[in-house]
Amino acid sequence: MRNNGLLRSAADTIRRFAMLRPGERVLVALSGGADSVSLLLVLQELGYEVRAFHLNHCLRGAESDRDEAFCRALCAARGVPLNVGRCDIAALSQGKAVEETARRERYRLLEQAAEGDKIATAHTADDNLETVLFHLVRGSGAKGVSGIPPVRGAVIRPLLFAERREIEAFLRENGQDYVTDSSNLSDDYTRNRLRHSVLPVLRGINEQAAQAALRLGEQLRQDEACLGGQAERCLQTALRADGAYLTAPFLACHPAVQGRALREAARRAGMPMRDLAQTHIEALERLLSSADPSAQLDLPHGFTARREYEAFRIAPRACGVQPAALPLTVPFDGLWTDGTRVKLRKLEKSEVFYKTVNTFCADCGTIDFASLCVRARQTGDRLRLTEKGGSRTLKKLMIDRKIPAAERDALAVIADRSGVIAVQDIGMDLSRRPGNGARLEIKIERN
Amino acid sequence: MRNNGLLRSAADTIRRFAMLRPGERVLVALSGGADSVSLLLVLQELGYEVRAFHLNHCLRGAESDRDEAFCRALCAARGVPLNVGRCDIAALSQGKAVEETARRERYRLLEQAAEGDKIATAHTADDNLETVLFHLVRGSGAKGVSGIPPVRGAVIRPLLFAERREIEAFLRENGQDYVTDSSNLSDDYTRNRLRHSVLPVLRGINEQAAQAALRLGEQLRQDEACLGGQAERCLQTALRADGAYLTAPFLACHPAVQGRALREAARRAGMPMRDLAQTHIEALERLLSSADPSAQLDLPHGFTARREYEAFRIAPRACGVQPAALPLTVPFDGLWTDGTRVKLRKLEKSEVFYKTVNTFCADCGTIDFASLCVRARQTGDRLRLTEKGGSRTLKKLMIDRKIPAAERDALAVIADRSGVIAVQDIGMDLSRRPGNGARLEIKIERN
Repeated sequence: MRNNGLLRSAADTIRRFAMLRPGERVLVALSGGADSVSLLLVLQELGYEVRAFHLNHCLRGAESDRDEAFCRALCAARGVPLNVGRCDIAALSQGKAVEETARRERYRLLEQAAEGDKIATAHTADDNLETVLFHLVRGSGAKGVSGIPPVRGAVIRPLLFAERREIEAFLRENGQDYVTDSSNLSDDYTRNRLRHSVLPVLRGINEQAAQAALRLGEQLRQDEACLGGQAERCLQTALRADGAYLTAPFLACHPAVQGRALREAARRAGMPMRDLAQTHIEALERLLSSADPSAQLDLPHGFTARREYEAFRIAPRACGVQPAALPLTVPFDGLWTDGTRVKLRKLEKSEVFYKTVNTFCADCGTIDFASLCVRARQTGDRLRLTEKGGSRTLKKLMIDRKIPAAERDALAVIADRSGVIAVQDIGMDLSRRPGNGARLEIKIERN
Repeated sequence: MRNNGLLRSAADTIRRFAMLRPGERVLVALSGGADSVSLLLVLQELGYEVRAFHLNHCLRGAESDRDEAFCRALCAARGVPLNVGRCDIAALSQGKAVEETARRERYRLLEQAAEGDKIATAHTADDNLETVLFHLVRGSGAKGVSGIPPVRGAVIRPLLFAERREIEAFLRENGQDYVTDSSNLSDDYTRNRLRHSVLPVLRGINEQAAQAALRLGEQLRQDEACLGGQAERCLQTALRADGAYLTAPFLACHPAVQGRALREAARRAGMPMRDLAQTHIEALERLLSSADPSAQLDLPHGFTARREYEAFRIAPRACGVQPAALPLTVPFDGLWTDGTRVKLRKLEKSEVFYKTVNTFCADCGTIDFASLCVRARQTGDRLRLTEKGGSRTLKKLMIDRKIPAAERDALAVIADRSGVIAVQDIGMDLSRRPGNGARLEIKIERN
């Protein structure tokens, strides 16, 4: 194989980040584009046992099918076992960002296909620089600006230190063709605007710009690991048995560590992170040092932070401010509170129901659809969970399950006028169990 | 004054970073361009006692004079005391980067003119984003990517959170004109390439891109302060009375802190920082944990790091590996070692010689130019420094001056075949003192 530069770059990267053991089996995410075709050839040449997975996104009609056919031919010619997945991303994403949905679905299917092997993706130094710029512009903080990690769980990126021009040269010199995604060449997407309008200017300033961004990422990840570790130790020291945190360990930290520890405390309380802004962290910092020993602070998604003398607690909003009831129609997919989403749909006759912790299947014949709603618990709510004992009050069930008082009002109760059907984190009433008739699937998700 | 937005932005920034006390006196760096004219107006409107300083760079001929005249007229109209400095940057920079030279000279003259007052410069959110991109591309690490600090010593930037479009709107609405630097409009300079080709694309992705970069900078500066503080404490704990550092406190640190502490240890040993790469830091880290208790490592500029059992030392290269002798011609300007530059020139008859610590003036008549050289000390080197005592060995003089043994071989000795003429950090032999004839100026500089 010609062009040892790319082989060397990949071998260096694999060794430096301990990505693979010699001869290890690895699954290549193969789009058929220049980057992933090179990755397949390089890993094979370096002696790894390569398998490939191609996902047909069905987004670009005939072009998607051409890409799949190309991958099949390439793998057949090189003796690489190929797995092809199909998914209709456009239908899955339902108006949400297509690229983000595609990304998540791709990784999910890849992990499934990997069966525990490492997964190699073909991200390059150019992809990394684009990602860094994107996060810089979007304001995703130091974490975003550190770019694409060389290793994340089972996912490895052996070409991360190689540049696109090296990859193109490698393919040219080896006479290997590849497919071109027509959406890559247009300026339709943000990433392509960066690729075609910004990267050439930056390379004009410094030919080594992409390598500079990679070095920055390594430094920032190291700094983050150090500060994140200190925040973790702060939380461990501060945590009381009742779930509140002592303020003193937080106050003893440098603001850089304190901010990270507060963010992590909010995450552990179940708060979705994306809406937690720097202003909330600053307000939390003021709460810690407030002279008022019962100071309180509203956070997004119905969460509050409360001082309890020398401690503080982050939790869903306390009793007395119950979220309002929301009538439900079928099908339904919407937010009850900022933190909780409810999904209802009738199951097809032949459809198999998969039980998970907050997915329930009820008999439609037992439900009064006119009064069907999601609401907070009410005095008198009762539920029968097992054949043995009779029904018990929801309050008792919540105490048994050790659900903190402050969080009880935030749990979704699905009910109709004859009573409780199902309760988030608790279960479904036995009287609603499906029989032979139509079935309603109830999903309750933390948002 | 119309357009309160800019006034509010400046007032917020001044308060948030405690830049000025109410009514405090402040010197504005006034170029006559949109940004600095706005800064002058805004600070005056906010009630501060404003003075201005304009530097005529003499780089752009008639345009430079037009700018000066504009500043004079503006300050006269607004009752602002104006100080005008002139300097020929092109002559000063002598082939070095004109922009960098101009920048340094501008700050030097500003500090002189400020007489202890705060100095306000007109950097904007746009300038900051350009700086961040520049450092990202150049690979200046997290410190560079954190951008322009709001406050650095006496220098404050009240418009740092304002965007260029706000400034232009402010001037338009107040009917205030300003001058335009013709070099700003061309794509000649790196900064202008970023300004005109990259910023518009980034703003197209996120209108708030410049504010995102400012937030990133605040986070990175806070992280740096935290990690830098920990590195400082590591050094304090590790430092022995003899100038070596114990390895244990370094080894107890997270790599993010260890790297910073090693970098600072090298800086304190006198090493120029610009050539200390990440690979050197990694080699130093290996030295710390090496099983060899006298392991040694070469660093740039003739420095070495040596393990001394459970300690290590960074110092100029040790005895036994003396730098080679270098023959000298006149005039001369070159490196003897990576760390030391020697300059020789004959002084004009009427020229005044300025004595500094490593600048010597010798009588050409006493010198054998054929054997003139710079070299490391040799056994037997002697020097007579004062009229009183006779000559003494160089070794004794070095011990008297408390020059550490490890550094003695790195000192430049200027000599000819009849002996030592002058020694770096020590002095010149009396026998070479200038008389009425031709004089040779000898300069020894640390590079």
